[in-house]
Amino acid sequence: MKKLVIAYSGGLDTSYCAVSLSKKYEVHAVSVNTGGFTKAEIDKIETNAYKMGVSTYKNIDAVATFYNKVVKYLIFGNVLKNNTYPLSVSAERIIQAIEIIEYAKSIDAEYIAHGSTGAGNDQVRFDMIFQTLAPNIKIITPIRDEKLTRQQEIDYLKTNGIDMSWEKAKYSVNKGLWGTSVGGSETLTSDKPLPEEAYPSQVKHAEEEKVKLTFKKGELVAVNGVENEPEINIETLNNLASAYAIGRDIHVGDTIVGIKGRVGFEAPAALITIKAHHLLEKHTLTKWQLQHKEYIASFYGMHLHEGQYLDPVMRNMEAFLQSSQDKVSGDVTVTLKPYHFSLDGISSKHDLMSAKFGSYGEENKGWTADEAKGFIKIFGNQNKIYQQVNSNSDD
Amino acid sequence: MKKLVIAYSGGLDTSYCAVSLSKKYEVHAVSVNTGGFTKAEIDKIETNAYKMGVSTYKNIDAVATFYNKVVKYLIFGNVLKNNTYPLSVSAERIIQAIEIIEYAKSIDAEYIAHGSTGAGNDQVRFDMIFQTLAPNIKIITPIRDEKLTRQQEIDYLKTNGIDMSWEKAKYSVNKGLWGTSVGGSETLTSDKPLPEEAYPSQVKHAEEEKVKLTFKKGELVAVNGVENEPEINIETLNNLASAYAIGRDIHVGDTIVGIKGRVGFEAPAALITIKAHHLLEKHTLTKWQLQHKEYIASFYGMHLHEGQYLDPVMRNMEAFLQSSQDKVSGDVTVTLKPYHFSLDGISSKHDLMSAKFGSYGEENKGWTADEAKGFIKIFGNQNKIYQQVNSNSDD
Amino acid sequence: MKKLVIAYSGGLDTSYCAVSLSKKYEVHAVSVNTGGFTKAEIDKIETNAYKMGVSTYKNIDAVATFYNKVVKYLIFGNVLKNNTYPLSVSAERIIQAIEIIEYAKSIDAEYIAHGSTGAGNDQVRFDMIFQTLAPNIKIITPIRDEKLTRQQEIDYLKTNGIDMSWEKAKYSVNKGLWGTSVGGSETLTSDKPLPEEAYPSQVKHAEEEKVKLTFKKGELVAVNGVENEPEINIETLNNLASAYAIGRDIHVGDTIVGIKGRVGFEAPAALITIKAHHLLEKHTLTKWQLQHKEYIASFYGMHLHEGQYLDPVMRNMEAFLQSSQDKVSGDVTVTLKPYHFSLDGISSKHDLMSAKFGSYGEENKGWTADEAKGFIKIFGNQNKIYQQVNSNSDD
Amino acid sequence: MKKLVIAYSGGLDTSYCAVSLSKKYEVHAVSVNTGGFTKAEIDKIETNAYKMGVSTYKNIDAVATFYNKVVKYLIFGNVLKNNTYPLSVSAERIIQAIEIIEYAKSIDAEYIAHGSTGAGNDQVRFDMIFQTLAPNIKIITPIRDEKLTRQQEIDYLKTNGIDMSWEKAKYSVNKGLWGTSVGGSETLTSDKPLPEEAYPSQVKHAEEEKVKLTFKKGELVAVNGVENEPEINIETLNNLASAYAIGRDIHVGDTIVGIKGRVGFEAPAALITIKAHHLLEKHTLTKWQLQHKEYIASFYGMHLHEGQYLDPVMRNMEAFLQSSQDKVSGDVTVTLKPYHFSLDGISSKHDLMSAKFGSYGEENKGWTADEAKGFIKIFGNQNKIYQQVNSNSDD
Repeated sequence: MKKLVIAYSGGLDTSYCAVSLSKKYEVHAVSVNTGGFTKAEIDKIETNAYKMGVSTYKNIDAVATFYNKVVKYLIFGNVLKNNTYPLSVSAERIIQAIEIIEYAKSIDAEYIAHGSTGAGNDQVRFDMIFQTLAPNIKIITPIRDEKLTRQQEIDYLKTNGIDMSWEKAKYSVNKGLWGTSVGGSETLTSDKPLPEEAYPSQVKHAEEEKVKLTFKKGELVAVNGVENEPEINIETLNNLASAYAIGRDIHVGDTIVGIKGRVGFEAPAALITIKAHHLLEKHTLTKWQLQHKEYIASFYGMHLHEGQYLDPVMRNMEAFLQSSQDKVSGDVTVTLKPYHFSLDGISSKHDLMSAKFGSYGEENKGWTADEAKGFIKIFGNQNKIYQQVNSNSDD
Repeated sequence: MKKLVIAYSGGLDTSYCAVSLSKKYEVHAVSVNTGGFTKAEIDKIETNAYKMGVSTYKNIDAVATFYNKVVKYLIFGNVLKNNTYPLSVSAERIIQAIEIIEYAKSIDAEYIAHGSTGAGNDQVRFDMIFQTLAPNIKIITPIRDEKLTRQQEIDYLKTNGIDMSWEKAKYSVNKGLWGTSVGGSETLTSDKPLPEEAYPSQVKHAEEEKVKLTFKKGELVAVNGVENEPEINIETLNNLASAYAIGRDIHVGDTIVGIKGRVGFEAPAALITIKAHHLLEKHTLTKWQLQHKEYIASFYGMHLHEGQYLDPVMRNMEAFLQSSQDKVSGDVTVTLKPYHFSLDGISSKHDLMSAKFGSYGEENKGWTADEAKGFIKIFGNQNKIYQQVNSNSDD
Repeated sequence: MKKLVIAYSGGLDTSYCAVSLSKKYEVHAVSVNTGGFTKAEIDKIETNAYKMGVSTYKNIDAVATFYNKVVKYLIFGNVLKNNTYPLSVSAERIIQAIEIIEYAKSIDAEYIAHGSTGAGNDQVRFDMIFQTLAPNIKIITPIRDEKLTRQQEIDYLKTNGIDMSWEKAKYSVNKGLWGTSVGGSETLTSDKPLPEEAYPSQVKHAEEEKVKLTFKKGELVAVNGVENEPEINIETLNNLASAYAIGRDIHVGDTIVGIKGRVGFEAPAALITIKAHHLLEKHTLTKWQLQHKEYIASFYGMHLHEGQYLDPVMRNMEAFLQSSQDKVSGDVTVTLKPYHFSLDGISSKHDLMSAKFGSYGEENKGWTADEAKGFIKIFGNQNKIYQQVNSNSDD
Repeated sequence: MKKLVIAYSGGLDTSYCAVSLSKKYEVHAVSVNTGGFTKAEIDKIETNAYKMGVSTYKNIDAVATFYNKVVKYLIFGNVLKNNTYPLSVSAERIIQAIEIIEYAKSIDAEYIAHGSTGAGNDQVRFDMIFQTLAPNIKIITPIRDEKLTRQQEIDYLKTNGIDMSWEKAKYSVNKGLWGTSVGGSETLTSDKPLPEEAYPSQVKHAEEEKVKLTFKKGELVAVNGVENEPEINIETLNNLASAYAIGRDIHVGDTIVGIKGRVGFEAPAALITIKAHHLLEKHTLTKWQLQHKEYIASFYGMHLHEGQYLDPVMRNMEAFLQSSQDKVSGDVTVTLKPYHFSLDGISSKHDLMSAKFGSYGEENKGWTADEAKGFIKIFGNQNKIYQQVNSNSDD
């Protein structure tokens, strides 16, 4: 039988695929952990995978890869899609797709399968990454092609001896390092918020808590003084802040296929890290660095969202972003509160707000009143000329 | 004596100016209300102005002008400087400067005075607007030129028979329609937050409250179903939300004179209106409208902040923004909570998220699986070609 | 029989379509003149159309529409794709598609056909415009679907009694108001230029000739003092400049389908008008108008090229561009020479380069040396602070 | 006496400065060669410098530095200010200022002098670079401060024993690697072109000549197959192309001080290199690389022009640009003709226009007609939805 690699999550859809494809192919199931799985969950997925008849199962730990290849740049760029969404799932899918296709190439698979429907973004990300990195490996997508109902899938599995409980959760949840997405009947409407219980974390602490985040060249290198790899620090921050139910929101965005989509999410570490990092940048970067970063970061987010991660322009943007982080080092203090957080302030030896050079609105140490007047006069020169040239012209 | 118009706020600095200038000029004091003054406060300013020896005093009600000339576009653009600050003061100063210089021209004044120091943004905004709209009216700035201490000013006033209480408030507060700025000893540091009491509003309501905001072509035309002029609605929203102490933050930004400045603010209506408006846009605008609006709005904010309001490019940007609002009509429901708010959702007949055209990730009503595959194949064409062309090249 | 409208050019492909479709449908042939056809050519197309068996033939004169809906904004934006190509064909196709689908709707056609292949941009433009403006009219594309060779088409026509000479021209030429595109065997390579004879115009005049172009709010209202509609003036300029073989170049661009495409063109009026208009703008617009117009115009060109003309963001951009032209009025003198042209200069009452305000590098009338020094000191403030803060830090 | 370094060109202004400053300071004259000087010219400048009474004279050869620090990135970005001017002088001044201030620091000078007037850009560039890199070295600018006439300077020199011929050339010319600027009475008007004789080069060859330019990662590494350092290749190309009087134009731009300025230039190598490099990029870069490079390059040019070279954002942009050149390698053939040139085509192993993947408009090898239809259907999805949602709504 020909080798096939399947992106396997253990849910109903990929279980159906695993079972049905195993009849024709030598199926190698792969799941990629980008921060959402515990060891116990992975073990359970593995056990189930073999029940579905796959030849091998492999879990790839891609948390560090995920951070280094994508999340890092999302932080450098303070990327929030439509000023809201940290692109949690969009970013994960890219790395998952890359890891899976590389695995497929490494075992000389002829086929690769994924469980996406034809209605969303994931199919685009998977197909595009697969086709680009391995144009000769054929893609198989039973869910998209066959358009079965859940019941039909369950029945099929039962017929094939898989009698598990496939009860549909009220809310579909996708968990990862950079955030958890939450879909439900409400997110299919435009007007309804998700209820409290739809979110994975609930408020456990009522009292405020201060957290010190330490950045070095834009990377989160310590939380409360404890140094660790950035991806570990993000996880630590997720744990601290989810006790306050921080980081919930609903994103409404443009899918790659042209329709609007709405999804709830809970991303405490992502939102806090980005806001803290941005504050540190406001103190350490120049006006033009802040301005041009906006353009770069906005398009970086758009292209990533749309599955264009392999476009070389992404590497060019990453070079810009990396270069911009040279002085983004220092501490940021954040106060966690139920459902929200605030930024206390920063401390950095690269802080450009130094009383040595004058205090805004208070004292001009670096220049005289006359120099200020000269500045303003010439700074406003063009508008003055424009006004005078055009003041008495009719057209 | 020659006519001089002074931008008069009633504070120590402009009182000093009024008294000292009245010795040499026929002083006409003007204050411009952009939403910060009550009738009682204006009356008090007027009474005091005459005590300072001015010839006339005039309060110009510019709330509607402020809304129509600037605030409207800040909403259309969802403008938050550095993703934080609604440009409350920056925007006010522009309109105040325009109103004052137009008044000065209308009474044929030869001089115009303002009380800004040489250390901040306001001097730039006042000077630039004055010079551009009335190049022949000479500008006088005693505070900037003389660099007196508060005590010297108080002594001078006392010597001249003005013995009022000039005790310095612990926090300097500037109130307006679009927000209240708060400065204090903490904002002169990089690391300290403002204490609770520094903010003008405190939490009065513990229970959540839902508010329905109705937008028509991007303008806030009703609050909870009550129609009114947008500037009135903003004030209503300010009142509702300040009971929850919503809208506090600290802005760190680049001043026009090159130093970094930090200022606290409380802007409940501004933040809620912008977030609600933006959500409505996410449902009603196309992807490219959302994307290009970001560029326009970001620079609109920068130029406004830097006093370039009279640059004709601002009119060009306003034309873009106005045009983009054609379908931004509908209701947005917001939930107010202590210190923060959340957006429930929207309802609009222009909503592009319609189940009629498919549901994100669930069902592709508008296209088949094969069409999706064709789309992805060609959408990813260039990256595939790039990868193949460059896969085995060394340099 | 059911009504079908076909976009008919009279070439082999659309002739094949007309004949074969007439067997099953009541075929209404339409050609849209966007500046490429003479009366004689249209008459010939009409005669031939009826030979192909169509029920009716109609030529729509869309030259003025073409100018008013697209060309005008391409001039306002000085749009040259990849800094080279005036988007001649891209722009024409959009207007042709709109005119044809509107015609189809007006006669209640159920089908619409075009002769594009599956390899290029035109299919995207036609399909997208058709589907957007008339989602219920079905699209038929025999050439794309059947993939016939030229010989098969010729044979089919002969079998059906159409025995015309279909010899393939060495160069395929598409003529329109905004330029003529030229494709040939050389444009299928990356390294070969088109030979002299491939271009429609050859040098007739050796002596230089000066042309005065008059713009009013960005529109070309007169050539050499003779006022006329802008589209007529463009045609006049085409005639004047093609006698010098001006405006030839080869464009290499990204097709909508992801491959690179190369096409020669000759667009004398487009290139001269854009360069002259841009020069006038450099004199009459502010720095920021020129800067932001670049962003808008570049994306306007991209979206137009990719068939997104109906995206409402295009209307928003047009509002910006229209607004920016308020003062772009005046005369520009151009010197035509064999194969190239140069711009002599401009004359405008809105010219911001007025000796009254100082002469660049020579004399500073509007400010003193001290004011200049003050300006520079503060203008450079942030970089100075940055350098000092970071001068002795290691990381 | 205290040490002073003067930026010395040997012209009347800097000669006046050298003589008058030598009375009070120990003057060290420095000239920086960014490509404009021959050995003989430098020797003459040196001889004259000593006549003016300076203590030492030094010529710094900065041609390679100029290329590596600025010109390289201007090529990577295809930077033409206002789509016209290669920023020849703007770029030179920056490097000259850096070299001079570094020299002043190396000899512990307390003062630094330059001969700029108060009316132009150069004063801003010199002052800003000096102040940023050496805030403690005081700047002296006799020409700006004293506002002498030429005659007064000549008389002063004569009185001090310097009786040289200072006849004013009809055209002031500034020569450098990246172009020669030409100012004259015509450039002080808006309507007059420079006459033929104002330009330094005249047509010597009537016959066309082909030149092969070889780029490696964006750098011009060979001309006609002869490898050399890029700055040498640029000089070679300048020599080849100036025999055809190629590269003349007039730039109208916004000075840093707000007025418009007009200057003629002749920059054959700059224009040819940029156009050839850009063509190679059109073949080797993706659509999004080309698009985002435009934004970066446009602002890179603006900031460079305005003396902001030391802003760290310039390093970030250079990182982007450098990264984008990874595959920009290959040959470009250019045909030189009297007064103009044309690009024949390119050859590159990174060429994305490969018939292997289909030929534009001719044959779709990489996809089927159905796939193309699927692509178009979904690509146009949002506009279709927009149109349907909004088709029958009134507001």
